[in-house]
Amino acid sequence: MARANLLVGQSGGCTPVINQTLSGIIDEAKRQKKIARAYGMRNGIVGLLRDECIELSALSEKKMQQLRRTPSSALGSCRHKLSDEECAIVLGMLAKKNIRYFLLIGGNDTALTTVRISEYARARGYELNAIAVPKTIDNDLPFMDHTPGYGSAATFVAATTQEAGKDTEAMRLVDPVKIIEFMGRNSGWLAAASALGKRSRQDAPHLVYCPERPFDIDGFLSDVEDVYSRIGYCVVVIAETIRDKKGDRIGKRTSGITRDSFGHPYLDSAAARLAELVESRLHIRSRYDKPGSLQRMSMGYGSAVDEREAFSVGKQAVRYALKGYSDVMVTLERRSKKPYRFGMGMVPARKIAGIEKYLPASYINKKGNFITTAFLDYARPLIGALPDFIRL
Amino acid sequence: MARANLLVGQSGGCTPVINQTLSGIIDEAKRQKKIARAYGMRNGIVGLLRDECIELSALSEKKMQQLRRTPSSALGSCRHKLSDEECAIVLGMLAKKNIRYFLLIGGNDTALTTVRISEYARARGYELNAIAVPKTIDNDLPFMDHTPGYGSAATFVAATTQEAGKDTEAMRLVDPVKIIEFMGRNSGWLAAASALGKRSRQDAPHLVYCPERPFDIDGFLSDVEDVYSRIGYCVVVIAETIRDKKGDRIGKRTSGITRDSFGHPYLDSAAARLAELVESRLHIRSRYDKPGSLQRMSMGYGSAVDEREAFSVGKQAVRYALKGYSDVMVTLERRSKKPYRFGMGMVPARKIAGIEKYLPASYINKKGNFITTAFLDYARPLIGALPDFIRL
Repeated sequence: MARANLLVGQSGGCTPVINQTLSGIIDEAKRQKKIARAYGMRNGIVGLLRDECIELSALSEKKMQQLRRTPSSALGSCRHKLSDEECAIVLGMLAKKNIRYFLLIGGNDTALTTVRISEYARARGYELNAIAVPKTIDNDLPFMDHTPGYGSAATFVAATTQEAGKDTEAMRLVDPVKIIEFMGRNSGWLAAASALGKRSRQDAPHLVYCPERPFDIDGFLSDVEDVYSRIGYCVVVIAETIRDKKGDRIGKRTSGITRDSFGHPYLDSAAARLAELVESRLHIRSRYDKPGSLQRMSMGYGSAVDEREAFSVGKQAVRYALKGYSDVMVTLERRSKKPYRFGMGMVPARKIAGIEKYLPASYINKKGNFITTAFLDYARPLIGALPDFIRL
Repeated sequence: MARANLLVGQSGGCTPVINQTLSGIIDEAKRQKKIARAYGMRNGIVGLLRDECIELSALSEKKMQQLRRTPSSALGSCRHKLSDEECAIVLGMLAKKNIRYFLLIGGNDTALTTVRISEYARARGYELNAIAVPKTIDNDLPFMDHTPGYGSAATFVAATTQEAGKDTEAMRLVDPVKIIEFMGRNSGWLAAASALGKRSRQDAPHLVYCPERPFDIDGFLSDVEDVYSRIGYCVVVIAETIRDKKGDRIGKRTSGITRDSFGHPYLDSAAARLAELVESRLHIRSRYDKPGSLQRMSMGYGSAVDEREAFSVGKQAVRYALKGYSDVMVTLERRSKKPYRFGMGMVPARKIAGIEKYLPASYINKKGNFITTAFLDYARPLIGALPDFIRL
């Protein structure tokens, strides 16, 4: 292919390292002679429709370093499903800007959008190499060992659970039960990471509940009572998406306003509800924390491995596009377990769409209230350094 | 006074640097020849009543370093008001252990407990030098420039607001309004700190509401609409204790279960309620974050100034006790504004009790929806380095 331009966009929820991936793409695009200029679309595909693109290849090295240290999506994000008319607009824009390398950083939906644009272009005789680049803190994309973004968020989850453990331990005569609600679309990858800093039975977390198993309130209360009677306090971690046997979210609102003004069911915090139940049924004072979007943007707790890998998948995406690949998503592979070494590969982007990867059964204990060492062995190489707190 | 022992305890809510103060006390106690041994009571005064004390002067330098890097109260905390009978037990314990230097790290209530024990001892002819040592992330203790613990929590608040700003800016086509609820017993010191990292009009926060001013819902909605129409997204910071004109907390629950099983009124998150209002009245999608106890224990965002000061007040408390002072609380003073230089002093502990220090009127703008540069000038020297994020 003759010298042409590259266009990149970011889509879906943010991560602390998605701009590392963007930097990797820019960095590689600058090195490749076949690429004249690299452009970025503002707010994903929506920005392209509005012709809101900016040039990225002119960024100074200083700005590039700053970009790598900035969380969230520096180009802006969106959640948008393209209509047929919009595909035509997109193709017009690509042709106008001589874009032959098209990269979208995102998850399942983004993979589909990438394929859709590429197929639309190909059917109309426009040569385009379209690559999807993975990112999600949820770690739920299939066909890869893990996702860029997970290691950083998992470090946040592990370290803040250690901190919450020290806080609850110190305050055990006042508020002995703490419930922490972490993200995780429909999987327990992040909740499970809370156990990575646990070194002794007294350390938090004491109980971990993932959405891969139905959540039973009586079982939960009995678990809490058991831990509390043993050590005098209890730190519980839940994934925000835990559901009961009927499949209803634990935070589902059953009275008052049950739907928001957009018609979506209102979900109260599952942690808030469980803290209330611990107080009303067990008569033990209970507090809850819901770090919310902090876990997808916190730069206070980092994973150097995750940063490096996120940067690398960006570079690799450009190389794949230049080699003529299209309609694929870059994947992260584990080439070696000890010492941990990663590699990269690819998978047809269409295969990613609509599939979520859950915690395998071997990562959750029999009782469904904690995770196993198999999970810890899997996750430990992906995260950053965890603190070692003192117990007097 | 002849060679005797020192006893220290921690009380009330934790901070990221309260163990720095504990380390300062141990460090100074080791250096002072008049002090034979330093003991720590587990869970504050409750531990002393139960004779649960541990020796601290034997801690190795390595353990001391680890202690300084551990958040929360390593000795454990409590909230306990002493009865007369308990004062007698306390005195018995002090005599048994030959304690003549008695230090409690805490806030208002702790200051009172210190005085109560010291007066009880003195009335019975037992010589005791009792010193209260300040700590609180809330910064609401009177007669001092600021409190140990505030600088670290303020750094957390400022940096995570910057991060939330980048996240909301990136997601503005999806969830353009973000409401963040920070702690602050009855004051806006922490909420105000959210503005410390703001460098331009586009940067978060765009609105800051403190409990020092009555909160008006219509005014709030109009403020949000205004910011949103101007820049396309809006990050609002509130103190968890904001109240309406009648003095009711914004998060006060008015239907369903309104009191917990301990009889305390149930408070839902004010941020959750405001996010609902933004959706139902302005029809703008809104999310909220409530970092909760994370802000009082996060080691991911530190203030070296706060760490150093917290260590110093611990050392100073020991020196005051040895000089024969009693019934005082150590204070932090600002000896020089530019360059910032702190000093220490003392105030009668009894004067601290029951007084909360609020944001002065000059620190809040006329509309009551943001803070002033006077506040920023006050707070900036107290916090750690803040990130400098890129905007493409």
